[in-house]
Amino acid sequence: MIDLRSDTVTKPTAGMWQAITEADLGDDVYGEDPSVNALEAEVAALFGHEAALFTPTGSMANQIALQLVTPRGSELLCDGDAHVVTYEVGAAAALGGISTRTWAAVGGDIDTDVVAAMIRPDGFHAVPTRAIAVEQTHNRRGGEVIPLATLQQLRNVADGAGLALHCDGARIWNAHVAARIPLATYGALFDTLSVCLSKGLGAPVGSLVVGSAERIAAGRVIRKRLGGGMRQAGVLAAAGRYAVAHHIDRLADDHARAARLGEALAPFDVVSGAVRTNIVALDLTHAALDAPSLGAAARAEGVLVSVLGPRIARLVTHLDLDDDAIDRAVEVLVRIFKG
Amino acid sequence: MIDLRSDTVTKPTAGMWQAITEADLGDDVYGEDPSVNALEAEVAALFGHEAALFTPTGSMANQIALQLVTPRGSELLCDGDAHVVTYEVGAAAALGGISTRTWAAVGGDIDTDVVAAMIRPDGFHAVPTRAIAVEQTHNRRGGEVIPLATLQQLRNVADGAGLALHCDGARIWNAHVAARIPLATYGALFDTLSVCLSKGLGAPVGSLVVGSAERIAAGRVIRKRLGGGMRQAGVLAAAGRYAVAHHIDRLADDHARAARLGEALAPFDVVSGAVRTNIVALDLTHAALDAPSLGAAARAEGVLVSVLGPRIARLVTHLDLDDDAIDRAVEVLVRIFKG
Amino acid sequence: MIDLRSDTVTKPTAGMWQAITEADLGDDVYGEDPSVNALEAEVAALFGHEAALFTPTGSMANQIALQLVTPRGSELLCDGDAHVVTYEVGAAAALGGISTRTWAAVGGDIDTDVVAAMIRPDGFHAVPTRAIAVEQTHNRRGGEVIPLATLQQLRNVADGAGLALHCDGARIWNAHVAARIPLATYGALFDTLSVCLSKGLGAPVGSLVVGSAERIAAGRVIRKRLGGGMRQAGVLAAAGRYAVAHHIDRLADDHARAARLGEALAPFDVVSGAVRTNIVALDLTHAALDAPSLGAAARAEGVLVSVLGPRIARLVTHLDLDDDAIDRAVEVLVRIFKG
Amino acid sequence: MIDLRSDTVTKPTAGMWQAITEADLGDDVYGEDPSVNALEAEVAALFGHEAALFTPTGSMANQIALQLVTPRGSELLCDGDAHVVTYEVGAAAALGGISTRTWAAVGGDIDTDVVAAMIRPDGFHAVPTRAIAVEQTHNRRGGEVIPLATLQQLRNVADGAGLALHCDGARIWNAHVAARIPLATYGALFDTLSVCLSKGLGAPVGSLVVGSAERIAAGRVIRKRLGGGMRQAGVLAAAGRYAVAHHIDRLADDHARAARLGEALAPFDVVSGAVRTNIVALDLTHAALDAPSLGAAARAEGVLVSVLGPRIARLVTHLDLDDDAIDRAVEVLVRIFKG
Repeated sequence: MIDLRSDTVTKPTAGMWQAITEADLGDDVYGEDPSVNALEAEVAALFGHEAALFTPTGSMANQIALQLVTPRGSELLCDGDAHVVTYEVGAAAALGGISTRTWAAVGGDIDTDVVAAMIRPDGFHAVPTRAIAVEQTHNRRGGEVIPLATLQQLRNVADGAGLALHCDGARIWNAHVAARIPLATYGALFDTLSVCLSKGLGAPVGSLVVGSAERIAAGRVIRKRLGGGMRQAGVLAAAGRYAVAHHIDRLADDHARAARLGEALAPFDVVSGAVRTNIVALDLTHAALDAPSLGAAARAEGVLVSVLGPRIARLVTHLDLDDDAIDRAVEVLVRIFKG
Repeated sequence: MIDLRSDTVTKPTAGMWQAITEADLGDDVYGEDPSVNALEAEVAALFGHEAALFTPTGSMANQIALQLVTPRGSELLCDGDAHVVTYEVGAAAALGGISTRTWAAVGGDIDTDVVAAMIRPDGFHAVPTRAIAVEQTHNRRGGEVIPLATLQQLRNVADGAGLALHCDGARIWNAHVAARIPLATYGALFDTLSVCLSKGLGAPVGSLVVGSAERIAAGRVIRKRLGGGMRQAGVLAAAGRYAVAHHIDRLADDHARAARLGEALAPFDVVSGAVRTNIVALDLTHAALDAPSLGAAARAEGVLVSVLGPRIARLVTHLDLDDDAIDRAVEVLVRIFKG
Repeated sequence: MIDLRSDTVTKPTAGMWQAITEADLGDDVYGEDPSVNALEAEVAALFGHEAALFTPTGSMANQIALQLVTPRGSELLCDGDAHVVTYEVGAAAALGGISTRTWAAVGGDIDTDVVAAMIRPDGFHAVPTRAIAVEQTHNRRGGEVIPLATLQQLRNVADGAGLALHCDGARIWNAHVAARIPLATYGALFDTLSVCLSKGLGAPVGSLVVGSAERIAAGRVIRKRLGGGMRQAGVLAAAGRYAVAHHIDRLADDHARAARLGEALAPFDVVSGAVRTNIVALDLTHAALDAPSLGAAARAEGVLVSVLGPRIARLVTHLDLDDDAIDRAVEVLVRIFKG
Repeated sequence: MIDLRSDTVTKPTAGMWQAITEADLGDDVYGEDPSVNALEAEVAALFGHEAALFTPTGSMANQIALQLVTPRGSELLCDGDAHVVTYEVGAAAALGGISTRTWAAVGGDIDTDVVAAMIRPDGFHAVPTRAIAVEQTHNRRGGEVIPLATLQQLRNVADGAGLALHCDGARIWNAHVAARIPLATYGALFDTLSVCLSKGLGAPVGSLVVGSAERIAAGRVIRKRLGGGMRQAGVLAAAGRYAVAHHIDRLADDHARAARLGEALAPFDVVSGAVRTNIVALDLTHAALDAPSLGAAARAEGVLVSVLGPRIARLVTHLDLDDDAIDRAVEVLVRIFKG
């Protein structure tokens, strides 16, 4: 099977397996796992922040960060297609008591004036806005990269209103590689970031929250309450350290392969937006077949695609797919779209 | 003082006082207050629904309804300026665990295609959308009336996706009078409504949730949990019954007076949208003075206006303001805007 | 009907009606209702506290206080039969996120060493205990009065561990009258109290939270979120002011009448504990008939009793029951228990 | 260091490492990790239940189970020293909205009549009790084993009232070995169980919820919301499978070693209760030194003990401690207690 559903499906490489089995371990609930501690320090340093916290999933990393910057009863602003209000099972509201208002789903093309106009300042009887979240790269919008200038404007908007700015950076590694922006440059713009090791970087499990030492200390309590305080988590963190050390730059290959998929499907008018990173968003509104049908047809030919809505699908390239796999996927998908 | 801040500031009329003192009372926690029971039955009937539930505030009525139609962990769609996500202190998320996504704040001018496109269908891994809320009339948008045709389209959108449709009808009485639409016609469009007795209708305290008998029975438990299970609430319900019986049609006077305010201020380019009901929304973005300054200047002259943001203010007409009061307010406000 | 179910069932007296109709009113959401403001100031002063907050129910008053003293994720200790964990529909956990551990239900006979031993100090990995709640008088335990010495010991226990002490004082007026302890003496022992106007005091609707100015200001926001920010609440507050001024001392009559009921039923071995105030708790474990049967039999004879469990019932005296009513109730109940 | 703090501190054995590196992996969010699927099936079968769900921690397993059996706003009964209300950071209330009442902390010596008397039946206005939780073995009570007969009585109590019965079985393996009760016998008594792989069994990370297929399917959604939906979790599950296959019977050695510690310390009157499994609870109320002092003194001599309160400490034996380690610990601790 050629699995284009998600970059989460990758399996450890030989080097990563070696890192896992050689990992120093300890009980991370007591803060004594050397591999976890090293990973947290390394990732915090990459983004120029004081501290980081290892979590079992990207959803938990996001939710911890949101609880840190958006007190219960206050408000977060984000894109209407953001992962935090789409794929985290309502956790921001259900667990964090966080009120959300969303701007029209635009992915990377954020109009910062629109965001600024949404902010409710304190002292006028309304729920106070406390934070803004962005997603870099933007999953449901085809891995779009929010331009640095837009992020800087958002930082100014946030500063002007005294708000925190959070980055759902599950795929910020892809933005870093595609836009050639240093991770620390991104880091400097945000109060908190979540970053994921088990998507493009290829580790089996794990994400981190990045932020100030004070916030991360408070986040450790939230993580425990959510049930994320693992024991010898170094088994996972060692894989993560290997991934951070060896799998960032190679994302350029994934991007090239996604571009190739995008070009091959361009004639069928189903590719939504430009392909900038490792995701090809498909909008089948005007296609002959809907998303579940595409999924079934492709699966029958050994290609797995992600079906995200009646007319929305997604192709994602990753560590476990080489050029041959992409050739084969192109052949299958083109044949299907040709009918 | 001429109080244009809100239609919530009214005091009982002589007839209403008489109704209060003649009220039959009982313990409503036991379901034994005859005045409450009568009010609930009367209001349910007005909207053509099976049942209604008396609550101490419109916020509680909205929150009970939202909890009824949007299970914790699922999603509600609404206008970005809706009362339910602006002036209810984040209760939908903080107490109900309800996830919200919002369409760009447009008041009555809802593009139902935009709403339809926001819905997340079941079975595609995302938080399921379960309800849509509208606000009739729309408070922050100057008392705008959502056209009946728009509401009917929204009902179709909701039906197509199996969603509930809630109406924050705190001022639905004003829409009924302004648009000459029967209350039952509105009622037929919604699964749940909240309606308020202490805004335009002039009762001192109280709102109701309107819906099916099954939902209202469940709402009674939610009301108790929120601390809204009052005892001899007939003291309030009697006033509400009087208000419903005597104060609906006279809202036309409030509308005429608001229109007069709007016309008087039109030359200063501060009136936001058309004045359709009893609210004049002021957008001071391009005015010489900001909202707090307007508030202070008007107060110094005996006129109270509502300051809702740095550049947003509001004038509201109501039962306690006659033509003379409006004359005087016009004089003061025009003088202030003339500088 | 002779209604012994609860002291919540009373209706306003003539004097109270006059107070209601003469009330000065305003919009309490703006803090402008003179009657509410006066009531809040008067009740705060009675208990020697800085401030008070009017609420539609005792449950809301309790829940606001608990949210003030027990941050989400921390712990409250209370009696296993306390109203706050029994009759408030789970609000402490469901809305406040407050963890509760309970000591064995003992009513007034609290062993403060047991309570002290339950406290989880900070810094030992457990959920930190933040507050203790007591109920004065204790509803499910027959209106028992917790001795002042016990409360003082609890205050010491709380101080020793840095905890807040809350009093569910829905019927603290009865304790004050029965034990001849000044309200301010009680007030001095607690960080927060809730007190109720619509039980023994006979007002139709309303309770208050009492505490420091800072806490009450924060409580005002919580009240709004819960949907308790009423408008011209002076209609209710005026009745409350009258009740506080005129109906406290007369509780001695209710207590004498409850004692009379208790004595009359003593031979049947169904009275649970001593009758100290206005409640007679009935334990029908060893009786010939269960609580629903008692309720039905008494109702058939024109007497209403409260059925609180399969074998638990309750009789409560109040403002609307005079000696004749008690005579009649005694006659009916004795006849039923005689079989 | 001889680490007696907890059985969570163990590191993988050579055999376990081999199992990890040979694991078949997949994306468990898609239900495609063969190692996770096998582990879930094997553990469900051990307890005679339909299904199981892998989680990153025992706390998450417990909280998922509690949310499954105790709907928000309803009530759970448990021991006052239960892990679920002590060491899970208030999650039951803060995240699940679950109200808790607790019986006096007694560990294994549960009086089922006391529990039965605490249940609030439906239909009497109180918060309905929906579930009872027990902890087998009981952590804070020195690894006590609740007798099978007691559990059977509790099952009867639960059945009589229509309640669910949950077992926090983090160390149920120890009870199984100590009491020679088949796991399936335990399994048959409970609606849901949590079991832990990273305590006595020695896996690095992971627990499971065990229950009916329907409950586990619902639990999968709750797990996702809590942020526990890991990707190639087979890395962890493979270790868990090895632990279940190879590390259960050897718990008898841990028990013998704990008994030896208990005997050695018996003369100092600090051992709380009998030592039945792998935990020695120390009550230092009457000792010359308090728990933090004991902890510091032992650490200085190379022995780590768990400090759980000002006067409460704990010793736990496990896979990484052999007889020599225990000899050395005995020597150190005896010397310290001798002063």
